Amino acid sequence: MQRHFDEQIQELLEKLLLMGGLAESMVQVALRALIERNESLGQEISRKEKEVNELQIEIDDRAIKLTALQQPVGTDVRFLFMVSRIATELERIGDQAVNIIQNVHHVIKASVLKPLIDLPMMGEIAEKMVREALRALVERDCALANQVLEEEKKVDAFNNQIFRELLTYMMADPGTIERALALILISRNLERVGDHATNIAEEVIYLVEGREVRHSHDSKKQITSE
Amino acid sequence: MQRHFDEQIQELLEKLLLMGGLAESMVQVALRALIERNESLGQEISRKEKEVNELQIEIDDRAIKLTALQQPVGTDVRFLFMVSRIATELERIGDQAVNIIQNVHHVIKASVLKPLIDLPMMGEIAEKMVREALRALVERDCALANQVLEEEKKVDAFNNQIFRELLTYMMADPGTIERALALILISRNLERVGDHATNIAEEVIYLVEGREVRHSHDSKKQITSE
Repeated sequence: MQRHFDEQIQELLEKLLLMGGLAESMVQVALRALIERNESLGQEISRKEKEVNELQIEIDDRAIKLTALQQPVGTDVRFLFMVSRIATELERIGDQAVNIIQNVHHVIKASVLKPLIDLPMMGEIAEKMVREALRALVERDCALANQVLEEEKKVDAFNNQIFRELLTYMMADPGTIERALALILISRNLERVGDHATNIAEEVIYLVEGREVRHSHDSKKQITSE
Repeated sequence: MQRHFDEQIQELLEKLLLMGGLAESMVQVALRALIERNESLGQEISRKEKEVNELQIEIDDRAIKLTALQQPVGTDVRFLFMVSRIATELERIGDQAVNIIQNVHHVIKASVLKPLIDLPMMGEIAEKMVREALRALVERDCALANQVLEEEKKVDAFNNQIFRELLTYMMADPGTIERALALILISRNLERVGDHATNIAEEVIYLVEGREVRHSHDSKKQITSE
């Protein structure tokens, strides 16, 4: 029974990783659409969104069935609850990619506002956070999970910097406001990807160390600069 | 045993309602701070945020312990997973209130930009959505949960309308950009409150009808107007 249970847990983790990989690649494609000014990449995102959504339902159902049928012990129950919550985080990372591609539309319908330097870098960090949070889960690696929490600070710093810079464009030329706003929103979308990765990392730390970190670095940072 | 289990489920629901009431009142206070231009209300929000966070941890622990110790059947397991996820939604509603109060700072540090009409109305709908989603849960009322999904459309419409109006202010006078942006972000915060209420309503529909609606009205709407 235990052996079978472990195998099913392993399968669940693999589904979660598959889902994570898809969600991360959605963000990547959305950023590529921005950089290459190619809105048609939205189709790839829609396709992957569907897969991500299906995986969420499947993972959730499996976690619930496993809990109901195998009657696992306390730590395993905690793990299964966590898997269900992490699947929700991953699904919302996919949502952010959908939001980004919608904002891309507003950026590329007019001429190039400025060369994109910070946003792609910010995006890479956010994607890396998702990847590492999931790796921390699989390897039950708290040091790696803590690294994800550290990286969130970089994402927030980028978010503030991008906000300030685009504000100066808007102030100088009202003709840039719509494009600049869309870029600000994309930056915010990426910040939320980082938030979701952080949530996953916090779950991992709690699972491994039994230490509650979910509320230790509230209150949430905000896009508006101080 | 079953009687005892039912009582514990009842207690869990009561904690969830308490948490929901607190999260909703955080949003209410944040909007009052905006309307009354009174940033000191932030202290009340911080106090409530602490309570909300503690309740989330408690609810989660209770749900997990109940699952591990009482070894409930399938539908009860599904319900307990759902309670844990709903607690996460409520905690994030509280986070939005914290975000709003931070944005309020940027609105009220300069003179009044415009009379606030739409934002308070939008806020009331979002708060009502939270209240009704929780009532739908307690009463297992799918009609009410569906009503919450309908109300989300109103919130989104307000969000678009507020965005467009503030855009015209920014275009006309760059001196208004910072304040207008902060108001746009508050509108977005409220939209996210509505999103979380919608997520709760969707969980209720799934629980009661076994019908998966979580992904039926993707993709998520975006603040930028089409």
